[in-house]
Amino acid sequence: MNTAQIMLEMAKKARTAARGLAGLDRTAKDRALLAMAEGLLEASAHIKSENGKDVEAARKNGLPSAMIDRLLLTDKVMAEMAQGLREVAALPDPVGEVTGMWTRPNGLQVGRMRIPLGVIGFIYESRPNVTVDAAGLCLKSGNAVILKGGSEAINSNLAIASVLEKTLSQAGVPRTAVQVVPTTDRGAVTELLALDEYVDLIIPRGGEGLIRFVAENSRIPVLKHYKGICHVYVDDSADLDMAVRICFNAKVQRPGVCNAMETMLVHQAVADEFLPQAAEVLEKAGVELRCCPETLKRLPGRRQAREEDWPAEFLDLILAVKVVGGLDEALDHIAAYSSKHTEAIVTSDYARARRFLAEVDSSVVLVNASTRFNDGGQLGLGAEIGINTSKLHAFGPMGLTELTTTKFIVFGQGQIRD
Amino acid sequence: MNTAQIMLEMAKKARTAARGLAGLDRTAKDRALLAMAEGLLEASAHIKSENGKDVEAARKNGLPSAMIDRLLLTDKVMAEMAQGLREVAALPDPVGEVTGMWTRPNGLQVGRMRIPLGVIGFIYESRPNVTVDAAGLCLKSGNAVILKGGSEAINSNLAIASVLEKTLSQAGVPRTAVQVVPTTDRGAVTELLALDEYVDLIIPRGGEGLIRFVAENSRIPVLKHYKGICHVYVDDSADLDMAVRICFNAKVQRPGVCNAMETMLVHQAVADEFLPQAAEVLEKAGVELRCCPETLKRLPGRRQAREEDWPAEFLDLILAVKVVGGLDEALDHIAAYSSKHTEAIVTSDYARARRFLAEVDSSVVLVNASTRFNDGGQLGLGAEIGINTSKLHAFGPMGLTELTTTKFIVFGQGQIRD
Repeated sequence: MNTAQIMLEMAKKARTAARGLAGLDRTAKDRALLAMAEGLLEASAHIKSENGKDVEAARKNGLPSAMIDRLLLTDKVMAEMAQGLREVAALPDPVGEVTGMWTRPNGLQVGRMRIPLGVIGFIYESRPNVTVDAAGLCLKSGNAVILKGGSEAINSNLAIASVLEKTLSQAGVPRTAVQVVPTTDRGAVTELLALDEYVDLIIPRGGEGLIRFVAENSRIPVLKHYKGICHVYVDDSADLDMAVRICFNAKVQRPGVCNAMETMLVHQAVADEFLPQAAEVLEKAGVELRCCPETLKRLPGRRQAREEDWPAEFLDLILAVKVVGGLDEALDHIAAYSSKHTEAIVTSDYARARRFLAEVDSSVVLVNASTRFNDGGQLGLGAEIGINTSKLHAFGPMGLTELTTTKFIVFGQGQIRD
Repeated sequence: MNTAQIMLEMAKKARTAARGLAGLDRTAKDRALLAMAEGLLEASAHIKSENGKDVEAARKNGLPSAMIDRLLLTDKVMAEMAQGLREVAALPDPVGEVTGMWTRPNGLQVGRMRIPLGVIGFIYESRPNVTVDAAGLCLKSGNAVILKGGSEAINSNLAIASVLEKTLSQAGVPRTAVQVVPTTDRGAVTELLALDEYVDLIIPRGGEGLIRFVAENSRIPVLKHYKGICHVYVDDSADLDMAVRICFNAKVQRPGVCNAMETMLVHQAVADEFLPQAAEVLEKAGVELRCCPETLKRLPGRRQAREEDWPAEFLDLILAVKVVGGLDEALDHIAAYSSKHTEAIVTSDYARARRFLAEVDSSVVLVNASTRFNDGGQLGLGAEIGINTSKLHAFGPMGLTELTTTKFIVFGQGQIRD
């Protein structure tokens, strides 16, 4: 079979599995998730040995050591994958929930019932543990999934897939509920993205290049985010100690992730007092400041910010800093440069807190808290399958519920339309 | 300016308008909607005269009379357009609703707030009244809209647009909240579909050709349905008089629309009794039956159904009829041929009603009621902007709420992440 045939066959099998999955109750799904966890641990030696082939090939091919780290399945990573499945089993089942029901004047009772999306295509890069995380979340939400991982992890992913298939069929779940694309042919992605008759949703996870390729070539809806250019605005009414703590946490706690702060906006009335305090702790942690002219007046000798620093996602210990005339200028700057990901205000002013919450058009908007809380787990959604910064379907972090949709159910007693 | 520049400028203006619209309260939006209704009626003579140019051109170009009918703006249609705007003004405002709020262990209070999508591109064919309906629904939901109507209605649409722009700016709403594409260049659609940086959603309305073109060429999410191949399954436990009434209504009341029944499935145990009764009333209304072999045994002399009749959307007084062994076969047939639009069961059996509701994967699933109820107004959503049979964002009829999304709002008092 060529790649096109392989992908079409997988999509058809996924569609068939989806019909079976939609009818499974929570007990059956949770049993399968726990069996998957056990199965992975039992097959740990085999999976690690297959993973060793990938790691060796990566070394031979001269991949950067950070990528090899992400590829490596240690006992710790194996245990975390199994634990992740157990945690998904413990989450409530979103499927079947009736989110509302009302009665029409003619007596028809109309409700909305939560159902799985159907078939999800998951396209990702190196980490093989994503294979397990995505399989667990899709299974719990009643969706079949087609997993296309990076070619550098192909042996690891196929070893994991064979374990999952076996445990699924033993647990009474359609074995094609979880399928790993068995080829490293990059054409497989293009083929998958054209199968809109069988696949309901595509989720890409990886670098911006991968995500743009998927978004531009897909006939299937895509939930994605390109980058996180997150802002913290320090208002003149802010508790400045709190503002320093929040900005430090937002920038330094994990600078390489999408919900880290990239630009700090400071009200001019507190710039003299706040900027030296903030600079002291940030620079002590190794943060490079890129400053607007007004900031430079308060922090002489630092690097001047250039236009390209405002829309930049540094993903590093670098921070753009701008002094603004007040809330309006901060809102304008955010509207111009934000990636609709996460923005925070530090303030003690009631009206400004409300305006910031109402007017900032980002998936998560916070008052007096770190941008680092934009995360499914931190916000209380349970395990997260990704963050979406397009506004359709789910804006922000996506948990199990975001892998479902609702249909209308209607109870009548013979009603016809006039 | 060439078409690409025109579309880019419109998209930028829409984006700017969207920021202003998002902050308008219900009073301001309703006032604008009522002003739009007044404005249209006051400018009625001018709009009808511009419409006359379109109608004359259509006659000259030999367009079918059904299309000319749809194009024609009579006093009655003008009054209906104005009334439609008043009804939208009377609907509740979805924007600002907090759909849930919870507190995390660290004290963070997390909620979801309903917000507009932003900018909507609406692509449709001949009816100029769609221009007004779409403008009203988008305005009420806080979205800016770019309207691309059919070239045969260009003078009508531009006349309507100039009235709307004037009334909007008088009512304090950004005048570029509603824009009509001023060119009949078909390239305008392709340009619009590429502006994913500015436009959040595309809704196409029209024939299958238009919708497929939009779906295949858009980088922006598209909510759409291609067709409605709707089934009614008559169970052996059905009240057969009710089944006849429901099937007659589903097929005959308005055969040319997407929620009309196209295939009737009949349990074999009641086929002898039900089929002659149903055939009598259906055929008296002019319905042509296309029958499976088992149906033909009970209704000799009718036309035999061919394979292509099962996936057909007749949109006419034609009905495919199939005798099935029971609910399982009915569910299999629906899974194979349905367009995920609307399916109904007529039954008095509790367990089968529940199974049908749970297992049929369509946007509206009904027990003992006509498929014709798949309609935003009939289901209680208020005015409808379309029906979506892809599962993302909104599955089924879409009202005002479906033109919004939710963002997370977070109230903290200094929380940082460990």
